[in-house]
Amino acid sequence: MTPVGVLGTGIVGQTLAARLANLGVDVLVGARSADSASLAPFAEIDVRTGSFSDAADHAELLVNATNGVNSLAVLESIGAESLAGKTVIDLSNELVPSEHGFPVPAASVENSIGRRLQEAFPETFVVKSLNTMNCTVMVEPPIVPGDHVVFLSGEDEGAKDRVRALLAMFGWRPEQMVDLGGIESAAGPEMMMKVWMSVSQTRGWDSRFNWAIHSA
Amino acid sequence: MTPVGVLGTGIVGQTLAARLANLGVDVLVGARSADSASLAPFAEIDVRTGSFSDAADHAELLVNATNGVNSLAVLESIGAESLAGKTVIDLSNELVPSEHGFPVPAASVENSIGRRLQEAFPETFVVKSLNTMNCTVMVEPPIVPGDHVVFLSGEDEGAKDRVRALLAMFGWRPEQMVDLGGIESAAGPEMMMKVWMSVSQTRGWDSRFNWAIHSA
Repeated sequence: MTPVGVLGTGIVGQTLAARLANLGVDVLVGARSADSASLAPFAEIDVRTGSFSDAADHAELLVNATNGVNSLAVLESIGAESLAGKTVIDLSNELVPSEHGFPVPAASVENSIGRRLQEAFPETFVVKSLNTMNCTVMVEPPIVPGDHVVFLSGEDEGAKDRVRALLAMFGWRPEQMVDLGGIESAAGPEMMMKVWMSVSQTRGWDSRFNWAIHSA
Repeated sequence: MTPVGVLGTGIVGQTLAARLANLGVDVLVGARSADSASLAPFAEIDVRTGSFSDAADHAELLVNATNGVNSLAVLESIGAESLAGKTVIDLSNELVPSEHGFPVPAASVENSIGRRLQEAFPETFVVKSLNTMNCTVMVEPPIVPGDHVVFLSGEDEGAKDRVRALLAMFGWRPEQMVDLGGIESAAGPEMMMKVWMSVSQTRGWDSRFNWAIHSA
């Protein structure tokens, strides 16, 4: 497997980096600065770290695991030139902090963070995927039974194939991968965040579940 | 079963009215006016028809099967007084016509038609449900295998129980009914419309499917 750069140091970035390292992938996790305190958890699991730019320089395949609220600024801090020709798996959701209660999903047909990233970096291959589930399920899908699904949205077939290869390493079977079309379709999975949060809440915040599509 | 008034004469209203009549329910379908041409299909299946107000006068339980773009105006044409104390199952989606291609789902956390209807008619019990699937699946869920789900959002437990009773008549089992909480949660199922359209499209517009939640 090709090296992977992970952008973001939260629970999603940590879970992905740990799983990639465990699979023997050469992974480097990037934060706002190479000496950010947020990088401490990665030293414990022997994963290399650096700045966002270091992560981008490290690999042709990048994972955007930042909060969608910050994702555009993170990619801008790396710069279009460094990102040109690279594949970015965008698993972000734009969650706006709220004073009263839970963060509020900002997605709509008019406001897709995946599409905005692609429009801002036309020479980069953005593939929306994995944003519709808990990060434990992302990297170890067999813990959930049956043909639950992972969506893919993006303009470039080669980039989608690279993402499919990564998904397969995690344990996703081809029949679970649902190609929704171009990056315009990324709004769909992003808009599922609201009901995903409600379902998690009804389950007492047990989010070890995933969506499946049952056919007549 | 208590009588039911159906608001809306499109394919959803037709499918619901036919199924309700078939189940022996006393159903009356309302349109903008009692002599609307859109009511012709109901004569063929021996279902009574009238204006929106006639449908509201007919029953304590109403089904909003109009396009969400029009739903507020439809309820306003009936009036708050006639709707007070009644339960409205809102299965609408707000789909904005587009010049170039498919209608565009307008739902977001900030724009939930279910919540807007509840806010506009505080003395009416709005329960969002059934809007996340094809109307054939709505009224005959056993055609889809397994524990696929139907969501409910609403403020009033009694109203939700009345909706559950209707769902059970259609063939929904209790374990398939997922109560998401108050009407604030209606935005979640509404925001699923975008990905639902994409999935339908990938299936060659075969929309005889439904969402399921698989648990670890």
